Amino acid sequence: MANEVSYSTFDVERLRQFTIDIFLKMGVPANEAALAADVLIKADLRGIDSHGVARLSGYVRLWQKGRINPTPNVRVVYETPSTASVDGDAGLGLVVAPKAMEIALEKAEKVGSGWISVKNSNHFGIAAYHALMAIEKDMIGMSMTNASPLVAPTFSTERMLGTNPICYAFPAGKYPPVIMDMATSAAANGKLEIAQRKDVEVPSGWIQDAQGISTSDPNGLKKGGSLLPLGSDRDHGSHKGFCLSSIVDILSAVLSGASYGPWVPPFVAFLDPLENQPGQGIGHFLGAMRVDGFRPASEFKSNMDNWIERFKSAKTSAEYDSVIIPGEPETQAEVERNQSGIPLISVVVEDLKCLSTKLSVEFPKEL
Amino acid sequence: MANEVSYSTFDVERLRQFTIDIFLKMGVPANEAALAADVLIKADLRGIDSHGVARLSGYVRLWQKGRINPTPNVRVVYETPSTASVDGDAGLGLVVAPKAMEIALEKAEKVGSGWISVKNSNHFGIAAYHALMAIEKDMIGMSMTNASPLVAPTFSTERMLGTNPICYAFPAGKYPPVIMDMATSAAANGKLEIAQRKDVEVPSGWIQDAQGISTSDPNGLKKGGSLLPLGSDRDHGSHKGFCLSSIVDILSAVLSGASYGPWVPPFVAFLDPLENQPGQGIGHFLGAMRVDGFRPASEFKSNMDNWIERFKSAKTSAEYDSVIIPGEPETQAEVERNQSGIPLISVVVEDLKCLSTKLSVEFPKEL
Repeated sequence: MANEVSYSTFDVERLRQFTIDIFLKMGVPANEAALAADVLIKADLRGIDSHGVARLSGYVRLWQKGRINPTPNVRVVYETPSTASVDGDAGLGLVVAPKAMEIALEKAEKVGSGWISVKNSNHFGIAAYHALMAIEKDMIGMSMTNASPLVAPTFSTERMLGTNPICYAFPAGKYPPVIMDMATSAAANGKLEIAQRKDVEVPSGWIQDAQGISTSDPNGLKKGGSLLPLGSDRDHGSHKGFCLSSIVDILSAVLSGASYGPWVPPFVAFLDPLENQPGQGIGHFLGAMRVDGFRPASEFKSNMDNWIERFKSAKTSAEYDSVIIPGEPETQAEVERNQSGIPLISVVVEDLKCLSTKLSVEFPKEL
Repeated sequence: MANEVSYSTFDVERLRQFTIDIFLKMGVPANEAALAADVLIKADLRGIDSHGVARLSGYVRLWQKGRINPTPNVRVVYETPSTASVDGDAGLGLVVAPKAMEIALEKAEKVGSGWISVKNSNHFGIAAYHALMAIEKDMIGMSMTNASPLVAPTFSTERMLGTNPICYAFPAGKYPPVIMDMATSAAANGKLEIAQRKDVEVPSGWIQDAQGISTSDPNGLKKGGSLLPLGSDRDHGSHKGFCLSSIVDILSAVLSGASYGPWVPPFVAFLDPLENQPGQGIGHFLGAMRVDGFRPASEFKSNMDNWIERFKSAKTSAEYDSVIIPGEPETQAEVERNQSGIPLISVVVEDLKCLSTKLSVEFPKEL
């Protein structure tokens, strides 16, 4: 039996102020509290509800556990003109990642591209936020991160990798940027959480049980199962999803000196990190490339427009109107929600109200 | 009813010399003929039989059609210290891509990383060849290419993208490098060709028919169908496979000025490129990053060894012994085939014998 889910809608700027106020209560400096809130609100605006203010109390709990440093000294550890590794000093990923991306953009400005591997960080919100920072400078942006282990490699029953997202953002001319922002698992954990809340079965191929058998039980993960890599099974290329997730893990963590694989510190505060960590915190990998390091930006953007138009007009099967250009639904959500406000489901509203009481921060009224 | 497939085995160096001789007959200069042959033989050694000498007559036919320039002037068109675009002058991708990768390595040597987008090229063989060039320099190698349109985006029935592979190669310490080399479609075209030869059904989710309905007919593609992106269908993340393939298409072709999407010139010589090409030839994207641009190489390689050991020892489901580390089967095949020779299926042997007669080049005896 499917559960009903109810929504309330909130004014964007009031929800933003509430989020800033919570970060301020954690001792985060004002400019960084505004930045962290901007990353979360951006997720809610773009319809990635699982990565917006729904996670705010999760960050607070990590801070209360002493696992998030509200005043980190984010610093470069090694560098060349086009690369660097950064120590996030256990700060909020929401602050560390944009700071690291700024370094990537500076390097790209000077030598054509910039690539930053980050250690000792925490959950960085939506990958698209950081990649999008490149767009207004006519650069291509890239971001990825490793994450709490939930995904089993092909043939395995053990949670060895996170949903390890990859994001690329490409500027276009007259159209919005093309943005690929994707978990490397068959389904993002956020989708599973929605199915759990609604108590509906999930498609086979999303998760497996503790014995490695595909299950449609939305609570299969809580019963010792694991998420499956993109491809779902060996016949359909799950080894490729495993490869993609591994690329993210290595570039984000083995390259920076963060923890990797099953050692990635869990996002949930009630699970302690494993002992004998091989690195520090979670890792990100961020990059930027100047388009005019390859060809004039106007030519690139004109070809991007043509690419978008050609794919948008590709023939479809009977039940669909058109191909969806990567990033199109999120860009549309951002336009709509900027006007009509951010809808939050009741469990998130209740959670934020508790947080509001606990930290004595006023919670906005719904619209 | 499954067809029988028979093999003959050939000495590696004799097959290499035959391949070099064929390229020499095309007018390829000696050093470049040796390079092109090395790329093809490497594919056969690594067990990627679809991309080895099995394709030799395909390159010859493209040359006969005037679509491959045997003596290209491969040159940089735009560059910054860490980026460049390269014009392949319609040369063999087997020659153009390694030359472009050399430029990436030089740039990485100087400024930490090098990223090259290539236009006006042809099929570049296995992606792993180019990425692997970085390994001996303690660099991370990356290579991708767009390819003949065979894959339909999610919701579409039109062939808009190639199987557009992505490859990353990471150096390790005491273990062989970790190499992810994967088509971004649910199944590589080579796997489909094997099913066609054997006349066996393919798993549902590899291809769809002309109406966009999944089919297990191995000849579905010849009947107007298309390959499906990694993920197979919307529920299982085919939009992510579409995203990955699009990333490859844009970085390889929109960034360099090559042709993209449905305009990518077909590998088969009997199909002419579409009219009104938006760019020149097919495109590649190649990259290299110095590991010590992020942390000391010894630390990275030691952590890679630990990563490999931990994943290799991950718990497996009952029917499997261990997780396969990316690149492991290919590295093992290379060791074995270097000793025992290269097995070729009878249709490939017959094809090479025809080529031998046509171009008056001696074909080696089987072992």
